[in-house]
Amino acid sequence: MKEKGLLIVLSGPSGVGKGSVRKAVFSRPDVHYAYSISMTTRAPREGEVNGVDYFFKTKTEFERLIEEGKLLEYAQYVGNYYGTPVDYVRQQLDEGKDVFLEIEVQGAKQVREKFPEGLFIFLMPPSLDELKKRIVLRGTESSDLIQHRMQAAREEIELVHMYDYVVVNDTIELACQRINAIVQAEHLRSDRIAHHYLKMLGVE
Amino acid sequence: MKEKGLLIVLSGPSGVGKGSVRKAVFSRPDVHYAYSISMTTRAPREGEVNGVDYFFKTKTEFERLIEEGKLLEYAQYVGNYYGTPVDYVRQQLDEGKDVFLEIEVQGAKQVREKFPEGLFIFLMPPSLDELKKRIVLRGTESSDLIQHRMQAAREEIELVHMYDYVVVNDTIELACQRINAIVQAEHLRSDRIAHHYLKMLGVE
Repeated sequence: MKEKGLLIVLSGPSGVGKGSVRKAVFSRPDVHYAYSISMTTRAPREGEVNGVDYFFKTKTEFERLIEEGKLLEYAQYVGNYYGTPVDYVRQQLDEGKDVFLEIEVQGAKQVREKFPEGLFIFLMPPSLDELKKRIVLRGTESSDLIQHRMQAAREEIELVHMYDYVVVNDTIELACQRINAIVQAEHLRSDRIAHHYLKMLGVE
Repeated sequence: MKEKGLLIVLSGPSGVGKGSVRKAVFSRPDVHYAYSISMTTRAPREGEVNGVDYFFKTKTEFERLIEEGKLLEYAQYVGNYYGTPVDYVRQQLDEGKDVFLEIEVQGAKQVREKFPEGLFIFLMPPSLDELKKRIVLRGTESSDLIQHRMQAAREEIELVHMYDYVVVNDTIELACQRINAIVQAEHLRSDRIAHHYLKMLGVE
């Protein structure tokens, strides 16, 4: 029997740099994760292709999928739905591929309920000051909104206990290296592979 | 509060190459494990120094230490005792240092009973043929003894379920890299460090 893939969930407070770390993880030539394409009800932007950038759905379609339990996690932003279709994830895992999701803390909470055996990694800012700096650097946000986001970040950080691992995003390169070590180690866990070796060696 | 060190136990069937892998792990400049000096009742060989190569003890002293529970594990070979003093290990762990033990499967079983929270890594031969080749290459052993050792190895491999991780010793370099990834990942486990971060960030 083929070993099932790992569901790797990278999450953390907004502003911590999840997107940059995910891009760095995917850019390594020696790392091959399945990429889960999100589903959304927002209109495609110029150049966006259905099934490549997103799966574009109507609000009715999306809500039916929620109803049918076809979304691993979903959330609403500015009036639009965003979510992760569960069928693709299950299929990749069954084929032995590791699936990497980079999602918000609320989404990760939903995934934990459906895939308790997933590998949950919390991306941590080196300090709250540094997180504030990164949020400010993104520009465009008012001082009130920054305060609000910092408060939200504190609440999200309090959920760290729900995760299996904590990775500090001090530098993207180090964070990326740590994530790869975690995934490598998880693949070497005895409860995953001991049976395989016993069979291969003809000991069992 | 300082994080406690990890007790890392490398074991596996005799002939698999535990000693070579341990030496390679210790030779890496970026890896700093505390080295646990064994205790023995055998006589010092030319040039061996008490407290450096071994702690040399009389049989009476050794048996008293067993009695007092001062040995993390011990065994008898060719009429002599060999063991790991527990005080040094506890002291290093309390100081936040990782302690690396390379021991026989029977010894690892004893350590598991005393330190269930240790990190137990089973070094696996790539195949039973390869293991036999390695045992034969060590020379000096009769064909009967080789058969006996192969049978012992099979029985030891059946104990792999007691371990946390399985590392194949296909090449020393790869085995060494995998062990380092495992130790790195274990240090990033949320149950070890989440509390530390919450405190550092002033969130808790």
